[in-house]
Amino acid sequence: MRKIILASHGDLSKGMLGAVKMIIGSSELGSNIDAYSLEIGKNPYDYVEKMKEEIKKNPNDEYIFISDIKGGSVHTALTQLCVYKNVKLFSGMNMNMVFELVFYKEKTLTTENGFRLLDEIKNGITFMDSQSFILQGSDEF
Amino acid sequence: MRKIILASHGDLSKGMLGAVKMIIGSSELGSNIDAYSLEIGKNPYDYVEKMKEEIKKNPNDEYIFISDIKGGSVHTALTQLCVYKNVKLFSGMNMNMVFELVFYKEKTLTTENGFRLLDEIKNGITFMDSQSFILQGSDEF
Repeated sequence: MRKIILASHGDLSKGMLGAVKMIIGSSELGSNIDAYSLEIGKNPYDYVEKMKEEIKKNPNDEYIFISDIKGGSVHTALTQLCVYKNVKLFSGMNMNMVFELVFYKEKTLTTENGFRLLDEIKNGITFMDSQSFILQGSDEF
Repeated sequence: MRKIILASHGDLSKGMLGAVKMIIGSSELGSNIDAYSLEIGKNPYDYVEKMKEEIKKNPNDEYIFISDIKGGSVHTALTQLCVYKNVKLFSGMNMNMVFELVFYKEKTLTTENGFRLLDEIKNGITFMDSQSFILQGSDEF
């Protein structure tokens, strides 16, 4: 079984989970996705210790963590979990990333496929202004 | 003056604003950043019409919209605003993107710099598992 955990400072992860549910519906999303919010005054390493126990107990489950920002305290703490073979960690959480992983149907996310997904996710990051809008015209939409 | 508007389905945008405030503090962030949440049953084009009036009234202000996902209803509606020279639109909102724009100090975000920022933002999107963790070792952290 795959578990996807959105992990962030504050309520970003919960907001993301709610927005994704709004678009594809709770039933389509399933119950294997959850959100971890680091609250003010709390230590992300307490969460990591708790997750270590769970991960060790479920070696056949795959845990995919999607963290808010590379080098932030949540992401840095979660890197400790990458010693386990059944853990994968992304940084730079956005909606496109969450969809790519929710709809990823292979049994295991291999290292190769993890890096391949990054390209898909990056393609969803775009910029537009009046100048590029004219250049791109209606083909973009 | 520059106005940054985080725009998303549901409370993703509000969660992002709260998380960013948690990291850098409300005073550092200033008041020129706001969040638009598309609620269930609401039409994003109503928001776009409202913003058209505001943007036309303030031609010397720069409006930077950061939308949740390319091709989603919020992003698609906001592209209509790109006919105005003082509007810039990003898709794929993540924390790294918000920080890049909050700390962008040039008076105007040119087309060239908008596309250049994309590269910085994309560099914040990473993948790690037990295999890449070993390969990267402690240099990454």
